[in-house]
Amino acid sequence: MNNQIRDVEIVEVGTRDGLQNAKGVMSTAAKKAWVDQAVAAGFPELEVCSFVSPKLMPAMHDSPEITDYAVAIDGLTVSVLAPNLRGAQNAAAHRPDKIVMPISVSRSHCLSNIRKTPEEAVEDLRAIAEFRAGLPADDQFILEVGLSTAFGCTMEGQVSDDDIIRLGLMCLEAGADEVAPSDTVGYANPAQVTRVYKRCFEEFGVKQTGGAHFHNTRGLGIANCLAAFEVGIKSFDTSLAGLGGCPFAPGASGNVVTEDLVFMFEAMGVRTGIDIDAMMACRPIIAEALPEDMLYGHLYEAGLPKGHDGGLVAAAE
Amino acid sequence: MNNQIRDVEIVEVGTRDGLQNAKGVMSTAAKKAWVDQAVAAGFPELEVCSFVSPKLMPAMHDSPEITDYAVAIDGLTVSVLAPNLRGAQNAAAHRPDKIVMPISVSRSHCLSNIRKTPEEAVEDLRAIAEFRAGLPADDQFILEVGLSTAFGCTMEGQVSDDDIIRLGLMCLEAGADEVAPSDTVGYANPAQVTRVYKRCFEEFGVKQTGGAHFHNTRGLGIANCLAAFEVGIKSFDTSLAGLGGCPFAPGASGNVVTEDLVFMFEAMGVRTGIDIDAMMACRPIIAEALPEDMLYGHLYEAGLPKGHDGGLVAAAE
Repeated sequence: MNNQIRDVEIVEVGTRDGLQNAKGVMSTAAKKAWVDQAVAAGFPELEVCSFVSPKLMPAMHDSPEITDYAVAIDGLTVSVLAPNLRGAQNAAAHRPDKIVMPISVSRSHCLSNIRKTPEEAVEDLRAIAEFRAGLPADDQFILEVGLSTAFGCTMEGQVSDDDIIRLGLMCLEAGADEVAPSDTVGYANPAQVTRVYKRCFEEFGVKQTGGAHFHNTRGLGIANCLAAFEVGIKSFDTSLAGLGGCPFAPGASGNVVTEDLVFMFEAMGVRTGIDIDAMMACRPIIAEALPEDMLYGHLYEAGLPKGHDGGLVAAAE
Repeated sequence: MNNQIRDVEIVEVGTRDGLQNAKGVMSTAAKKAWVDQAVAAGFPELEVCSFVSPKLMPAMHDSPEITDYAVAIDGLTVSVLAPNLRGAQNAAAHRPDKIVMPISVSRSHCLSNIRKTPEEAVEDLRAIAEFRAGLPADDQFILEVGLSTAFGCTMEGQVSDDDIIRLGLMCLEAGADEVAPSDTVGYANPAQVTRVYKRCFEEFGVKQTGGAHFHNTRGLGIANCLAAFEVGIKSFDTSLAGLGGCPFAPGASGNVVTEDLVFMFEAMGVRTGIDIDAMMACRPIIAEALPEDMLYGHLYEAGLPKGHDGGLVAAAE
């Protein structure tokens, strides 16, 4: 499934970012079924889990097992989150292709999310890079930093572009391969997206600028992806059914809805390599495994337009 | 409220297109309260109703009264829909600023929507233009055609750009001041939007190309508005709470959500002239008047980002 011609890569982060804020705790069997179906649909990369204490985050109760399961799938790029050196070491033992460390641009969010200042987190990142340098060739991984709250912070409000660049450059100097400005709380707008990425390309380099990560909290997720695509971003983090909503803001949906973004690109003639019907078949797996959670997404409800390649018939007919 | 500096015009079409497909029939008092609050929020133009038989469309039971009410408001541009000469004559008696006639680009949709072929509808349009020519100066109105199903049709599937242009030119020749390609069923994608408007500007002229009218049926409404804005469109039809969903496709939301689009533009620094807090105050009026209808929109649930001018505090904090 990894030989598809693609113009963009849709990275399904649902089993990590989506489940992190879900009401229900998904079973290992359901996560595996989701991974299998996503792979069958042609997703090139999955961010499968986070290496944090299951005491702090019960949804991540089975990260080693899920990582092993995904890593065994031929041709799939497997990404995991790790908030510190210990998490990265635990993760590396399961040989994912990529480890993402979240470091918030906003100081307050960084302290509450990973209990470190951004500067302390960069030192932890440096320790991860040094740890990686000592690993055999087969155990190497890509080291990415998710620059959380890059587009705004629920605690501090606006975040300056200069702060994104300063932290990003520190991370690259400390050993990160890529840094990805992330809209953790759904504050971004398309003009800001265009401006921030242009600056990142200049200051980090195009290859060093990671994929887009927007939340749809205020309804602009898809429009922000469009702006990012237009400026040259080729990789997009999304979650099936738009999971990832904040439990304290009912109705405030989470990650960009995978189904709707895949539809947008395919309708535009931008190839994702994803089979829409097979992607839609992920949805019942999620619905059954998370009966209490709100599932988002318009395409799933409305169906594909009549005449669209994907083969579904519009429900509204 | 009409002296605000605006970069774009958000045209609230909720009391027309939004209510047309609602489950509930909104009372006249609630419609007036909605109009009042929208005016207080600074909306420059409202499409208030449709002059069709209330037997066919019970939601439009009070179109003459609502039009009279809106027309009496100083500085407000009042637009109404009329599907034929008789509707336009009935509407004109109430002196709206604009009458919009819907003519579908797709032949099948045109026949089922207004019971005429597009060519027959153009002759009706010509009769409306002639009728208008005989009116005194004070009773003149702008005559716009909504080119329905321009971006695709639930009955015929894809619609060709050539067909949009052919019908649009016929309408302009028959006496329309503006023609507006409309995405009646939520089939449009941003690449198509860019391509279609570029062609319309060339073939109709920029001034003759009417505002954007997208539905959010497949989640791309806001992204399509962004694409339209980027290519030069300055006027956008939207509905508060995203009303207008199709009763046969549960969850398939309707018009672009006014609140979310206003937020996008304001966050981008594109001035709408709309006060966000006052706009949000429309929502309880709608919720109370339509208890059975699904209300959409992310901004209303999540609140404004911390630090945003609008003054609300993010609910997620």
